[in-house]
Amino acid sequence: MLTSLPSFARLEAELGKLPGIGSKTAARLAFHLLRTSEQDVAALAEALLEMRRKVHFCQRCFHIAEEELCQICRNPVREKQRLCVVQEPQDLLAIERSHSYSGLYHVLHGALSPLDGIGPDDLKISQLLQRLKQESIEEIILATNFTVEGEATALYLARLCKEKGIQVTRLAHGIPSGSDLEYVDAGTVQQAVAGRREF
Amino acid sequence: MLTSLPSFARLEAELGKLPGIGSKTAARLAFHLLRTSEQDVAALAEALLEMRRKVHFCQRCFHIAEEELCQICRNPVREKQRLCVVQEPQDLLAIERSHSYSGLYHVLHGALSPLDGIGPDDLKISQLLQRLKQESIEEIILATNFTVEGEATALYLARLCKEKGIQVTRLAHGIPSGSDLEYVDAGTVQQAVAGRREF
Repeated sequence: MLTSLPSFARLEAELGKLPGIGSKTAARLAFHLLRTSEQDVAALAEALLEMRRKVHFCQRCFHIAEEELCQICRNPVREKQRLCVVQEPQDLLAIERSHSYSGLYHVLHGALSPLDGIGPDDLKISQLLQRLKQESIEEIILATNFTVEGEATALYLARLCKEKGIQVTRLAHGIPSGSDLEYVDAGTVQQAVAGRREF
Repeated sequence: MLTSLPSFARLEAELGKLPGIGSKTAARLAFHLLRTSEQDVAALAEALLEMRRKVHFCQRCFHIAEEELCQICRNPVREKQRLCVVQEPQDLLAIERSHSYSGLYHVLHGALSPLDGIGPDDLKISQLLQRLKQESIEEIILATNFTVEGEATALYLARLCKEKGIQVTRLAHGIPSGSDLEYVDAGTVQQAVAGRREF
């Protein structure tokens, strides 16, 4: 808090709670907002309240939604026999931006991380198993992150899904587009060599 | 905007208007706020509205204030014969943090910059001249930034104040604390040599 003006200091403190915003950035934002029209500040405040009031998680796939089901679950054109499992809504959005997938999703809201005390019950895994029973899903695409936690989660889910006789696939692991091999880390190169394909 | 959910996209757009916040950061903040309790989001929204409603500029020195005069102008202990001229409220706060000054201030809200079309009438200069008439000020400390615009503003103000027979000083220009001479820019070293003092 840079000032002792109560209402200014309060806004600085509230902004400082946001991720990646330290006290200096909070002060800079507060000074910017002081010079913004009252109407624009009201629009920001209203957008905050409206989003928090209207947005929740889809009851089927746990993506963000304003209605009971999200826009993807409600879309009749999506392929209902394919299910892509991601960690977070942001990951789902990344796949949507690639325009490469037209099936449904399931958002876990995290990944297994025993060190942080995050087990299967902390994720939307029981809800996923429920969906596998109720929906006629033929392929599960595991799109958890390529980190230790994401890989562990993928392994765990693969075992569960294979027991049910469902085809399980994983996003390809390899060299990203536009990269220079020289600068790609050894782990990625190793995965790319092991996963090489007929040309 | 990463999503097509209206209320979420609206918040992303509003956050993206803030300085230094691009579309990715706006999305990250919006996802964070989605996971924040409704109470905490309401506290942020209320802090925004309260700050914008209560905070304005001091009628005398143009620092931020909740009442007609700011906390510094209302403080009877401050030396009334010294006036420190700064570009922005943030600059005033930097001097206050140094605990090295106990006089009054005058915030210009900018610096002369003919290339950007900012002339004396766009700054609080006429109000400063008015104060020089009404208050019994003996010393003006020019604390505008050490940039081309700040230096030009200091020169301009020095001329006006000297005409009125008021002592005009400028913050010392030189090597900052903790610096290694080797890495200080040539302009600063030049100023430090020219402004050397008896030891």
